[in-house]
Amino acid sequence: MWLRVGCTLEMSFQVESPMLLLLRPRSDAHQWVAQDRYAVFPGMPIIEYTDMYGNLWQRLTAPPGHFKVEVRSDVQVPATLEQAPGAPFVLIQDLPDQALMYLTPSRYCDSDRLGRLAGEIVAGCIPGYDQVEAITRWTHEHLGYLTDSDPAPISALEAIERRNGVCRDFSHVGIALCRSLSIPARYVVGYLNQLEPMDLHAWFEAFVGGQWYSFDPTRARPDAGRVRLGYGRDAADVPVFNQFGPLVLPSRMEVSVEQITVPIGETPS
Amino acid sequence: MWLRVGCTLEMSFQVESPMLLLLRPRSDAHQWVAQDRYAVFPGMPIIEYTDMYGNLWQRLTAPPGHFKVEVRSDVQVPATLEQAPGAPFVLIQDLPDQALMYLTPSRYCDSDRLGRLAGEIVAGCIPGYDQVEAITRWTHEHLGYLTDSDPAPISALEAIERRNGVCRDFSHVGIALCRSLSIPARYVVGYLNQLEPMDLHAWFEAFVGGQWYSFDPTRARPDAGRVRLGYGRDAADVPVFNQFGPLVLPSRMEVSVEQITVPIGETPS
Amino acid sequence: MWLRVGCTLEMSFQVESPMLLLLRPRSDAHQWVAQDRYAVFPGMPIIEYTDMYGNLWQRLTAPPGHFKVEVRSDVQVPATLEQAPGAPFVLIQDLPDQALMYLTPSRYCDSDRLGRLAGEIVAGCIPGYDQVEAITRWTHEHLGYLTDSDPAPISALEAIERRNGVCRDFSHVGIALCRSLSIPARYVVGYLNQLEPMDLHAWFEAFVGGQWYSFDPTRARPDAGRVRLGYGRDAADVPVFNQFGPLVLPSRMEVSVEQITVPIGETPS
Amino acid sequence: MWLRVGCTLEMSFQVESPMLLLLRPRSDAHQWVAQDRYAVFPGMPIIEYTDMYGNLWQRLTAPPGHFKVEVRSDVQVPATLEQAPGAPFVLIQDLPDQALMYLTPSRYCDSDRLGRLAGEIVAGCIPGYDQVEAITRWTHEHLGYLTDSDPAPISALEAIERRNGVCRDFSHVGIALCRSLSIPARYVVGYLNQLEPMDLHAWFEAFVGGQWYSFDPTRARPDAGRVRLGYGRDAADVPVFNQFGPLVLPSRMEVSVEQITVPIGETPS
Repeated sequence: MWLRVGCTLEMSFQVESPMLLLLRPRSDAHQWVAQDRYAVFPGMPIIEYTDMYGNLWQRLTAPPGHFKVEVRSDVQVPATLEQAPGAPFVLIQDLPDQALMYLTPSRYCDSDRLGRLAGEIVAGCIPGYDQVEAITRWTHEHLGYLTDSDPAPISALEAIERRNGVCRDFSHVGIALCRSLSIPARYVVGYLNQLEPMDLHAWFEAFVGGQWYSFDPTRARPDAGRVRLGYGRDAADVPVFNQFGPLVLPSRMEVSVEQITVPIGETPS
Repeated sequence: MWLRVGCTLEMSFQVESPMLLLLRPRSDAHQWVAQDRYAVFPGMPIIEYTDMYGNLWQRLTAPPGHFKVEVRSDVQVPATLEQAPGAPFVLIQDLPDQALMYLTPSRYCDSDRLGRLAGEIVAGCIPGYDQVEAITRWTHEHLGYLTDSDPAPISALEAIERRNGVCRDFSHVGIALCRSLSIPARYVVGYLNQLEPMDLHAWFEAFVGGQWYSFDPTRARPDAGRVRLGYGRDAADVPVFNQFGPLVLPSRMEVSVEQITVPIGETPS
Repeated sequence: MWLRVGCTLEMSFQVESPMLLLLRPRSDAHQWVAQDRYAVFPGMPIIEYTDMYGNLWQRLTAPPGHFKVEVRSDVQVPATLEQAPGAPFVLIQDLPDQALMYLTPSRYCDSDRLGRLAGEIVAGCIPGYDQVEAITRWTHEHLGYLTDSDPAPISALEAIERRNGVCRDFSHVGIALCRSLSIPARYVVGYLNQLEPMDLHAWFEAFVGGQWYSFDPTRARPDAGRVRLGYGRDAADVPVFNQFGPLVLPSRMEVSVEQITVPIGETPS
Repeated sequence: MWLRVGCTLEMSFQVESPMLLLLRPRSDAHQWVAQDRYAVFPGMPIIEYTDMYGNLWQRLTAPPGHFKVEVRSDVQVPATLEQAPGAPFVLIQDLPDQALMYLTPSRYCDSDRLGRLAGEIVAGCIPGYDQVEAITRWTHEHLGYLTDSDPAPISALEAIERRNGVCRDFSHVGIALCRSLSIPARYVVGYLNQLEPMDLHAWFEAFVGGQWYSFDPTRARPDAGRVRLGYGRDAADVPVFNQFGPLVLPSRMEVSVEQITVPIGETPS
């Protein structure tokens, strides 16, 4: 399926403000970017670089005054979310090297304190995919969704105690519980089709049965239509906009996802 | 300056044909891609990967029948080509690790056989930028430009003996002569504004005075307006389309470069 | 100066136990490993891989029973610790790409909660090296050193509240305070000559004035004689032994550092 | 099996001479380095770096006068060389990204000119391993081994015409023939147990049946006991010593390989 995703961000800076943006989807095994457009106003030099997770960042220094970034991409993604009930737990010694870094605790995924709880949640499950699914379901049921506010990020343990959160917190809880069982789990930020209300979204992936599978504890069902912007150990790694200097909140942040039939605006000549 | 660059390629395959394409410009220190569009017909799965030079490749398997790829990008590039007469030779021990691989001979840059000639060409030059400039000028004057044919690639030494070639050969000669003097040199393939007749182009970069500078032995003057598609040790590393299986020549290959004022087609909302 | 460093670790496993070890020093800009020896008992297959920080890990699966690893290296390191009072703060936009990941909070360095405290500590300092030095001194004075116990790791904020810790916690506090001021800071684990009592040690590096400098809040003075085993965002990234499965504490852990004059045991033939 | 390998190299320099050395074996999937020792005389700063093939290089600048480097390693390697008759050709579209760079021609492997010959050599073979074996056998039989001289490197095509060469040339011929059939092939330099006369050796690996297999056209039989120093597209990528400046030949080059039973000189304490 083809999705046209877009994000517009506006801010007003008092002083020159260096920024790191993570707003350009990149083609990978899950998605193919057939067209994109990345505009900043006013015009200014932008440099792109790839971080150690493979994410593509835009570095720029916004001058004082009004700042706007507008990004739009046409992306092909799978029409269904891959599922694999029964896919087995992968022994540590059999994990690919690149998955190992997703086993350790991170800023908001304090897996080192959740081993007992995780054990209770997955009791009776076949080790692997089914455990992650149980964790996802538990998280979905345990946490209430905060619609009206976007509080500062908290750790998985704090979110579990508070019993509510936003998609970011749901994902941190799922990830931390997986890691406490030695299942590699990573944070994903991106777009989700038909999200209500529309916004950027976060979910997670777990490595079981020899590959990464997506899980979304915020959602009741494993819906497809996902465009990835970045991967990390948790939200600290992948802020879609990371602004340095005096804190400035966006005056406008608009996200759109639209299913399209023809990926490219023009008919081929 | 903003350039709208485009390439259309059409072929007819008798059998399923795996291909590697190097047709998507990537943002880097020299260029910012504000918009791009990459379309293949018929639609088929495409995977992108980055090679060890940092080039972005598209992998696909074209089905039998008509195949077409159409790429277009709006790219911001410097309005003048950076020059640095007098920039010094960098001692081997002071070269960055990443430049070292551009010192050794490669398929078409047989620098191991050109030391004496290079010494004659640069006699009397200040070591560094001025040597590369002398090499570039010598190459431009020594080789005749082949307009009507595109022969199979030959090595720098062969091109020097044959005394003519296309932009690819001019670049190989320049690179091989530089390397024989222990100046790192790399091959660049991309677009050049106002090239006559319009086509994809090749030039080279040499590392002197602490950074990479562009040199173009095909051209009489160091003209700007360059969009890079890829870097390599020579043309063997960066075929813009690499087709496996029975040889099929493109039935149509169309390249365009147009200077534009407004990078993005639409006015921002 | 030449140091002969060594570490011996013994454990008893009830079950087959996959492990990740970070015990082989690697040559880099700070140190040259002239000789090393890495022995495990009983013999078993070992695979080495490099993680995204550039650390060299040994992967193995220990069989049930007695396990022993014994590592020894002769390493050349600088005789004095480089210092640079007055070295300036590097603007975010001027940081190298690779330093950016050391700006964000991590598991034990909750820099997102320490901005105000950091501001107080560095009040009046020239931005850059002098700020890091003030943070290092403040940490050294604020925290008591725990000699008799090695508690579970806690975050920088928790350590500040508890007012004591081990070298790991001192480093986390220093790192978190630096990051809250937008100074990249990373955790280092390794050996320190003449440490009393001898053990593996942790300190940190901060990026100011265009390069990384070492700071050690555990120590009263900036002493030299340091051999690095690994770098990370905090201790969660670089456990020198990471054992999976039922928790087993080492029955013996012995660390040695000895200054030597002749790096190589034998006279060259 | 455990091998103790060693290399001693002596040279006399008139002037300060920057060098790149590739003399430290590194642990990987094929070998485990349990102990090593790397000594240079006189003592001088050495920096190690990893190139794009994963090779570990030592960079140094030798002062005028006598220079000596002495390296010794104890390495565990498989006791038999893995073989896989019948292992199938891997379709281009199924090759891992990292294998693709070993398909293109390189300095001494002019595969672009050997397609017809390769086709004749492998006529009737099952595509894949058996083709590479036929190429290896053909190369072994077609080329005479030059024992008394070490001529300047020549290309595969030149070696085929000359009908003789050293291990380097045998490998180039094997590699070039494989690549002309779209089989990824890479050059390996290292040690071979019981080589007569003892010296550094070169062979190649081809990617068939989903993994890399070793082939050695210089040898009549696929003997084991191989320690790798480096991988590349051909000999141009992996000179074990790469000396810049006025050419100086080693006054002494001594290579040793010895099978040992106890990997570590000392009994563990």
